[in-house]
Amino acid sequence: LVEGVHFELYYTPLNSLGWKSLAVNISDIISMGGLPVCSVVTLGLPEEWEVEQIDALYEGIQQCARTYNCPVVGGDTIKSPSSFFISVAVIGEVKEGYEIKRSGANEGDLICVTGELGGSSTGREVLSTGNTKNEYPICVKRFLEPNVRLKEIRMLQGVMKIHSMIDISDGLSSEIIHLCRASGLGCLIQEENIPLLEEARPWAEARGIPLLNWALSSGEEYELLFTVDRGEFYQWQTSKRTDDFVKVTIIGEMISPDEGFLIERVGAKFPLIPSGWDHFS
Amino acid sequence: LVEGVHFELYYTPLNSLGWKSLAVNISDIISMGGLPVCSVVTLGLPEEWEVEQIDALYEGIQQCARTYNCPVVGGDTIKSPSSFFISVAVIGEVKEGYEIKRSGANEGDLICVTGELGGSSTGREVLSTGNTKNEYPICVKRFLEPNVRLKEIRMLQGVMKIHSMIDISDGLSSEIIHLCRASGLGCLIQEENIPLLEEARPWAEARGIPLLNWALSSGEEYELLFTVDRGEFYQWQTSKRTDDFVKVTIIGEMISPDEGFLIERVGAKFPLIPSGWDHFS
Repeated sequence: LVEGVHFELYYTPLNSLGWKSLAVNISDIISMGGLPVCSVVTLGLPEEWEVEQIDALYEGIQQCARTYNCPVVGGDTIKSPSSFFISVAVIGEVKEGYEIKRSGANEGDLICVTGELGGSSTGREVLSTGNTKNEYPICVKRFLEPNVRLKEIRMLQGVMKIHSMIDISDGLSSEIIHLCRASGLGCLIQEENIPLLEEARPWAEARGIPLLNWALSSGEEYELLFTVDRGEFYQWQTSKRTDDFVKVTIIGEMISPDEGFLIERVGAKFPLIPSGWDHFS
Repeated sequence: LVEGVHFELYYTPLNSLGWKSLAVNISDIISMGGLPVCSVVTLGLPEEWEVEQIDALYEGIQQCARTYNCPVVGGDTIKSPSSFFISVAVIGEVKEGYEIKRSGANEGDLICVTGELGGSSTGREVLSTGNTKNEYPICVKRFLEPNVRLKEIRMLQGVMKIHSMIDISDGLSSEIIHLCRASGLGCLIQEENIPLLEEARPWAEARGIPLLNWALSSGEEYELLFTVDRGEFYQWQTSKRTDDFVKVTIIGEMISPDEGFLIERVGAKFPLIPSGWDHFS
């Protein structure tokens, strides 16, 4: 994560940055079906940084490390001539044969997503335009210190086979298309089923953007997008106990590649356009 | 490794930089008694970089990965607003109880070093002052594409117990003092025993610096400095086969901490001064 590219320090507290730097890498392990084991953290520090700033950063890193049981076991601290950067590598493990790839989806699979979308982009804009974090507290929390779906996906893996998976770092529509391309399939998304974080609605709509579109392109959500067998999923849904803590929403299905990437909106089908963040577009 | 801090692209070919970026991290694993397993590589690229440059960099990374059997299994590529940087994490393994630390030296241990010193600093200066690499080819090779002592130390570990170890990245004198401090001991170095890379002599002496001093502070050598039991070492030396490929030199011994850090020069003892590279001195 590089200052000025991935984050801005003027609206990102250092302990939040520490949390997020580790969390987003843990999310990458989780989204392949793995369990995080440990991490190494390298800091590139401009000369003017103070020890107190590094302490604050590490407080957030350690909170995240404890939460997801992923201790920092090494790394390096070096001088950076200009921008501050933080480079994290997380080591995870997965039982052989249990890794989940983007390419594993089957035609007819249900496309599911955890949680609710649209909060992270709202949180970033609320802060970057000078508002306090009290105005949209859930959105701001999503942006600054995202939870990653470790316990949720472990539970799901226990009751159904996940065919393909990716975490939402660039935006829902882009990630769906990543899964489709890797699996050689098309998709049909039901727009009205996309789970929306309602707190974000007034922010999006005050800017003339329907919350649905906002949610389709909101990056850095770190919710999980995955595909599963229809029968297995419905069986779980009918049998699940009321205390299951996982919010999972069916948003569409994998279809033939000949049909392409589609989104259905009030009965009509439109092309699904990738939107969100691409470093080298 | 950050452009402008750890390397300069105007005299460092990209494939050499790729080799070195991985090699120096493998050296860290080796110097704890470990075996490299795999690595992750993150590149922070300024916007103007071309694909051909990344290919050249990766050619060097892959050569090193093959040489030391340490494949690149992941990483990230991101945009950097100013300097180019490369962040490498190497994952290694060591049998429980066989890890080697800086703190494991005993009083009376012999202090040993692999290879010959003084080449890397010479190579860097030869290149940075505009000379071609043909003038001091061994020195330049040491600087640009250092070999790390994987097979050498595996052989030694098979015939003796290494009590403490460190690789020479900052300069011999600094590294000796690191071992002493971590082990709570002093040292007595025999200056005349320090193994010198003779090719470097005219370069050092033309600058009025005795090669010995040059070798004491030459960083980025990636030779191994370690301490062993005197008896075990002499037993290996007398029994070793002529085809043993490891050059190891005894340069001194670990002594009581009360005596401090000493270097003996033509019969007189002087304080050993740490010299070399410190990022945040």
